[in-house]
Amino acid sequence: MTYVVGIDLGGTQIKAAAFSPAGDLLHRETHPTRDGDRVDGVPAWAHTIGGVLEAWTARFGRPERVGLAAPGMPAADGRSIAFMPLRMDGLEGFDWSAHLGRPDGVTVTNDANAALLGEVWQGAARGRRHVVLLTLGTGVGGAVLVDGGLLRGATGRAGHLRHISLDPRGQVGIMQTPGEIEELLGECSLAARSGGRFDTTRALLAAAAAGDLAAADVWAQSIRALACAIASYINVLDPEVVILGGGITDAGDQLWHPLERELDQVEWRPGGLRVPIVRAALGGWAGTYGAAAPALE
Amino acid sequence: MTYVVGIDLGGTQIKAAAFSPAGDLLHRETHPTRDGDRVDGVPAWAHTIGGVLEAWTARFGRPERVGLAAPGMPAADGRSIAFMPLRMDGLEGFDWSAHLGRPDGVTVTNDANAALLGEVWQGAARGRRHVVLLTLGTGVGGAVLVDGGLLRGATGRAGHLRHISLDPRGQVGIMQTPGEIEELLGECSLAARSGGRFDTTRALLAAAAAGDLAAADVWAQSIRALACAIASYINVLDPEVVILGGGITDAGDQLWHPLERELDQVEWRPGGLRVPIVRAALGGWAGTYGAAAPALE
Repeated sequence: MTYVVGIDLGGTQIKAAAFSPAGDLLHRETHPTRDGDRVDGVPAWAHTIGGVLEAWTARFGRPERVGLAAPGMPAADGRSIAFMPLRMDGLEGFDWSAHLGRPDGVTVTNDANAALLGEVWQGAARGRRHVVLLTLGTGVGGAVLVDGGLLRGATGRAGHLRHISLDPRGQVGIMQTPGEIEELLGECSLAARSGGRFDTTRALLAAAAAGDLAAADVWAQSIRALACAIASYINVLDPEVVILGGGITDAGDQLWHPLERELDQVEWRPGGLRVPIVRAALGGWAGTYGAAAPALE
Repeated sequence: MTYVVGIDLGGTQIKAAAFSPAGDLLHRETHPTRDGDRVDGVPAWAHTIGGVLEAWTARFGRPERVGLAAPGMPAADGRSIAFMPLRMDGLEGFDWSAHLGRPDGVTVTNDANAALLGEVWQGAARGRRHVVLLTLGTGVGGAVLVDGGLLRGATGRAGHLRHISLDPRGQVGIMQTPGEIEELLGECSLAARSGGRFDTTRALLAAAAAGDLAAADVWAQSIRALACAIASYINVLDPEVVILGGGITDAGDQLWHPLERELDQVEWRPGGLRVPIVRAALGGWAGTYGAAAPALE
């Protein structure tokens, strides 16, 4: 059969999906990343991805094209990740084209950018040309579409929406930004923000719903920070729509209702224009859609 | 003679400049804006600009093209300012093409965007494709170049760099943004930030240089906020260069030295990459260059 492959290499999971050229999902699989392990002299994740492609080739034939989404900054030629400090040892400069036996190339995309491309292809950003995407989970991710194309910037690091400062005197984040949104909203910082009482947004919200005022206050501050960050992105980037994805959007009305109230206060609405804030449509598989989407072009 | 005209309509001054098609400055004039006055049934600024063009036409012949820079958001067709609340009554929807007798059109550009286009044409952004420009004065202005073109966004409001939040609990600015950079750095907020002691950055810096620790602390907080804002722009927009203009850059080393020290702390520098922060080259006339630049194309 004729198909294309999108692979999303994450910190804990590898997701792989096969699509028809028209975009129908044909098959998908999940495997553990095993970051840090090595097999046959290569990182375990590279070995696993190679194995998936071999198995699919045996079952379905050789895929027409393969795209890969991964954390970090892609090289200028789009064939590897050039910069990914601290995690995923071996990923920087890893030659996917050689490893997967694809002399025609494997398109490598930043994972947040891939999620946005996926939403543009088949999700909440379909038909849009100016989009801000935020993923709210353990960390906070982001990507930006300008005039129908990914905002990449001079070196490929544009769209790192998590690294904006909401407090010049605040805690410094992984990339030096004081008081960044991840420190105010990401699940990774929840224990610190709640005096060690909560590890998950789910537990925090259950306590708030049960009348725990301290928990409610921690959440209210996160939502205020998120609304201010969204207002900032709107004023700088002027998107048609802001898309929120990631596990924290499972909070449902406990997220959307207070967020709308805060945006009523802090969003600049020239001539009454209000930017819609909508939920991502493809869930955790957006990255595979986006990794496959450029491969379809 | 063959020439093009760039006009910068500001809140207090109108600047008009004539350029050769090759970009040489041939002639320039300054007039008061007289915002709020009317002459012969039109706003005084429109009457003044009409008079300048009539006089130049009599002296130099009819200009080939005319471009205008003004505050607010240009209409989608680029022939008027569509949105400018609170100031410059009469500017919204004003038909420059009809008023100036230019049926071929008058290109209308946002003033900060024009300053950036001017710097691209003949200033500090020459040859650059990814640029962040900030003007630091009474207020704070901004504009962004992406892939060699102005970042306009879905409705033309992109690049409003002043309206980013650096404090979700801070003072709300003119467009609802809490703790925006203008409230932390703009001269308009200096009296409030200094307990009523200073109205100008010049006076503040003179006191700081003379050993006034309270003045030095106000300035240190402004510089910290500016460094954090610049770090945020860099992480979202990934420019090759950040250009600072406006009256506050007259502070010289009292601005640049502490700003560099703060950026050493808060700027994300992947692989050692450090984004140069440079001073605007065209001073207060950048807007006329930029207004004329699109008129040359």
